[in-house]
Amino acid sequence: MLVVKVGGSAGNDYDALCDDIAGRWQAGERMVLVHGGSDQTNRLAEALGHPPRFVTSPGGHTSRYTDRRSLEIFMMATAGLINKQLVERLQMRGVMALGLSGIDGRLLEGKRKSTIRVIEQGRQMILRDDWTGTIDRVNVSLLRALLDAGYLPVVAPLACSTVGEAVNVDGDRAAAAIAAALGAQTLVLLSNVPGLLRNFPDEASLISHIPRADLESYLDYAAGRMKKKLLGAQEALAGGVQRVILADARVPASISQALAGGGTHID
Amino acid sequence: MLVVKVGGSAGNDYDALCDDIAGRWQAGERMVLVHGGSDQTNRLAEALGHPPRFVTSPGGHTSRYTDRRSLEIFMMATAGLINKQLVERLQMRGVMALGLSGIDGRLLEGKRKSTIRVIEQGRQMILRDDWTGTIDRVNVSLLRALLDAGYLPVVAPLACSTVGEAVNVDGDRAAAAIAAALGAQTLVLLSNVPGLLRNFPDEASLISHIPRADLESYLDYAAGRMKKKLLGAQEALAGGVQRVILADARVPASISQALAGGGTHID
Repeated sequence: MLVVKVGGSAGNDYDALCDDIAGRWQAGERMVLVHGGSDQTNRLAEALGHPPRFVTSPGGHTSRYTDRRSLEIFMMATAGLINKQLVERLQMRGVMALGLSGIDGRLLEGKRKSTIRVIEQGRQMILRDDWTGTIDRVNVSLLRALLDAGYLPVVAPLACSTVGEAVNVDGDRAAAAIAAALGAQTLVLLSNVPGLLRNFPDEASLISHIPRADLESYLDYAAGRMKKKLLGAQEALAGGVQRVILADARVPASISQALAGGGTHID
Repeated sequence: MLVVKVGGSAGNDYDALCDDIAGRWQAGERMVLVHGGSDQTNRLAEALGHPPRFVTSPGGHTSRYTDRRSLEIFMMATAGLINKQLVERLQMRGVMALGLSGIDGRLLEGKRKSTIRVIEQGRQMILRDDWTGTIDRVNVSLLRALLDAGYLPVVAPLACSTVGEAVNVDGDRAAAAIAAALGAQTLVLLSNVPGLLRNFPDEASLISHIPRADLESYLDYAAGRMKKKLLGAQEALAGGVQRVILADARVPASISQALAGGGTHID
């Protein structure tokens, strides 16, 4: 069992990815595809006059502040557009894809963080009306039932809070939770970089292998989203996944290249 | 088995609808909820600077011209926003709702009408790049598997063309196809009118009963979307559904009121 996450950044080749998935699917491999959508969400939010607001935590981490309107825009961009376009691409290649988000059938369940502490102009303050969350539980029986019936689940990064609210979750960590819950052998995290780079953005400085015991010491090389990917990798490995591969979504046969040794292998 | 379709027009009370569904669900009734989304699609399209374009067929029917960008907007408004917000409302009421669109797992399969004949300024012309379709087949085994596993399917009105493209379909006719395929006893079509009115918009002129044999003769009372509802009713009855009810989505307990005799009953 393979779990693949693909980001939504410019340059990622969805058509080539879906060609690769179709080839592997028709050869009998079973997998789950998880996608992101921050970039499309940002573009839609700008177009609708509700631009994204990024905030800094007291610990120095930057994250998106998701008010209710931002959550609705996130739903449209991810569960609406990206999810259905991926399903369409796969269906056109003969793959029985089925799109869901984490709120559907409580596929991904967690806690909503309705208030967040942020630093603005040097002062600490609390923002309310936040709609992000963590993932504590995966509805594995739903995923297995779909896989057993011959469907390829395509998952949008929403989750369902304990009381049933929709929340925005990180796609990499959603993929990690799914891979761990399914007991997947491999988790592939695809984005618009070749993997973890020792000297970002120098692509020749790709780190090709990280022993899992040393993962912590590599966190220093990671900036921005790459940090969340390493965090996801850590969570997946701790949950029993055998290897995590960070690889390039801009190239043909991205999954197959990654499985054949491309990208950064963490095991 | 009950199939309910709710439109997206102003005034429809989704909260009250979901209260009603939750009560019936917890009492053991099993059902499928289908929704529309033209109004939200139109609003989103206006906001994004790609306003809807309505065209007239040589036969005098008005319909929406769905170019690729319009299809993407339709995906966002229906499969993204409305679908996930209905699922969220139901999850918050303890109902195991699971949202899908017709392209997911080829839930609804049909033919794409990629060109349409229209009359513009008195002249007949052909528009290409249209992304609408008909429904020829329902993936009943997917719906039954979800219902048997305890999920309430919430369906967005997209379908999958034979070659796998996503297409926009009419929500009322999607609900009719699902009701017929599932062998549902009753199909309830909820919108922002009390049912079929003899003198639209005089709500006191509600037609409370139409014998199925006479349905054809009532088409004259229907204008606009109501025509599609009667067409859907006709298709559902021909497919074995025992009764179709056109009822009001603006009132509390809309489904229960309809089943208790409210609205226009066609049987």
